[in-house]
Amino acid sequence: MSIRIGIMGYGNLGRGIECAIRHNPDMKLAAVFTRRDPAKLRILTEGVRVYQAQDVFSHKDDIDILMICGGSATDLPEQTPALAREFNVIDSFDTHANIPQHFANVDKAAKESGHVAMISVGWDPGMFSLNRLIAMSILPGGSTYTFWGKGVSQGHSDAIRRVEGVADARQYTIPVEAALEAVRSGGNPDLTTRQKHTRECFVVAKEGADKEKIEQTIKTMPNYFSDYDTTVHFISQEELDRDHAGIPHGGFVIHSGKTGWNDEHNHIVEYSLKLDSNPEFTSSILVAYARAAYRMSGEGQTGCKTVFDVPPAYLSPFSGEELRAHML
Amino acid sequence: MSIRIGIMGYGNLGRGIECAIRHNPDMKLAAVFTRRDPAKLRILTEGVRVYQAQDVFSHKDDIDILMICGGSATDLPEQTPALAREFNVIDSFDTHANIPQHFANVDKAAKESGHVAMISVGWDPGMFSLNRLIAMSILPGGSTYTFWGKGVSQGHSDAIRRVEGVADARQYTIPVEAALEAVRSGGNPDLTTRQKHTRECFVVAKEGADKEKIEQTIKTMPNYFSDYDTTVHFISQEELDRDHAGIPHGGFVIHSGKTGWNDEHNHIVEYSLKLDSNPEFTSSILVAYARAAYRMSGEGQTGCKTVFDVPPAYLSPFSGEELRAHML
Repeated sequence: MSIRIGIMGYGNLGRGIECAIRHNPDMKLAAVFTRRDPAKLRILTEGVRVYQAQDVFSHKDDIDILMICGGSATDLPEQTPALAREFNVIDSFDTHANIPQHFANVDKAAKESGHVAMISVGWDPGMFSLNRLIAMSILPGGSTYTFWGKGVSQGHSDAIRRVEGVADARQYTIPVEAALEAVRSGGNPDLTTRQKHTRECFVVAKEGADKEKIEQTIKTMPNYFSDYDTTVHFISQEELDRDHAGIPHGGFVIHSGKTGWNDEHNHIVEYSLKLDSNPEFTSSILVAYARAAYRMSGEGQTGCKTVFDVPPAYLSPFSGEELRAHML
Repeated sequence: MSIRIGIMGYGNLGRGIECAIRHNPDMKLAAVFTRRDPAKLRILTEGVRVYQAQDVFSHKDDIDILMICGGSATDLPEQTPALAREFNVIDSFDTHANIPQHFANVDKAAKESGHVAMISVGWDPGMFSLNRLIAMSILPGGSTYTFWGKGVSQGHSDAIRRVEGVADARQYTIPVEAALEAVRSGGNPDLTTRQKHTRECFVVAKEGADKEKIEQTIKTMPNYFSDYDTTVHFISQEELDRDHAGIPHGGFVIHSGKTGWNDEHNHIVEYSLKLDSNPEFTSSILVAYARAAYRMSGEGQTGCKTVFDVPPAYLSPFSGEELRAHML
């Protein structure tokens, strides 16, 4: 029997989940829900229907796990607690500072209704968090460094698009190779924001716009760019569409720690991702955790969970016996 | 209250556990057990006693988790099931092919006696297994490659020492850089044993020994060397002691897999270790899993467990709340 997945919100992430389901024969797509006009939304899977978002509650019996693909700023804080009252749910809430509050809200809803609600699933938060936690547990007292990129930051690209005179933009976050090497050498360097990442911007200016002013506005933008070495390239819309259409990303979690009676030995644990498609990789993680949520719910567990709470075996379609024989 | 750890067997691994306990304030060393003469064994921790191995059963009430530091060939298949009848135990059983049988034996003993027994904890099996499992669950249909080294293989060093005319030896396993790069490029190459690793041997010959014959014997040794490009260097005992005294190791787990409706996007997940001391790093992992075993036992769980069964949060001394606030 397949695990029946519902998708709430059909953007890059929702579409990525649809694709990921295709790679997992123990799952099937049950329904897609959208705030757009369902009649106008074309999805990839044959024979699966698209419904209005608000109709989701009438499909309770058709869905084992509902994947909530909204944004962390305004969608998920509302949607996840509300939907956890009626469904087992997964979200990819990624505003790190607000995770405790989101967890509390979702936990209350999921515990009261008897569901499993898994939040902040993805690669950061998610896989990177797992690697930070495990490395720090093995080598306490060590230092963990997280680098992002090279990859497209949607938030920074959006910030550039809001600058006067900008028609379109794409921003890449790039880890500084020298900083990576310093960390890998075990030197436990203190690194400033500027030393860890650079930012590269590809900008399409509107006709007649003041490019010098645009560049200045970007480079001095607080929070987004002012703490970084930022490069701005002006290109045409055709070039942007041709050379920067993808959504690659990735990054590194490097932990450096010592062992021995007198800390005489050093160890480097490194986890890295090189992703052609950030949303599709994130979706693939969400789908593996949907399998875990399904099992945990089947065991009678309830409440809010994160990647920290999931025994890794639950992510796999294979039995414990198969995993021990072939992957341990 | 500290978790009271017992160490069964005081070799490199047992000593590494003693050091790791020092880095974990929620643990304390309760006792060390040895098959050698306890009066002659000097340990590092003040005020902790060393006992005869067979006296372990009279210390049941003083030990929360017993770390079994024997060899996988003959010690652990006997010791772990026997000790799991009286203690919560951890071992680092690493004969991959025999894990299912070992699991079955240990599971029976631990279930009947109501203990938690965690087997095959370390980095391979262990951390590498976790990374294989998680990457394969996220990107099913992809390919996972494991490379070991650069590092000292104890088993291969021992094999060389058994060659006639050899006084001492140290063998390094080295991953082939071109193979690593081929895998990282996403090409999913088929790699032979010879293409993945080379073997470098530092050999001290006995006086008057036939070096050419030694080299030939090593290079053609079935299972150990004949399938590899092997280099043999003859050096003096002084050089061996000076330059090759450490036990470094490490390696790489690289998973390459595709996403998208038509597999149009590729992703590389890489986990790597660079270890100054193989036994001390392994011991540090064992100690983190001892914390998990202690908690799982406290919850009433019983039976044999592996790293696949442990929720990552259980490895950390921090609460779920602290972990979500600071590491997620």
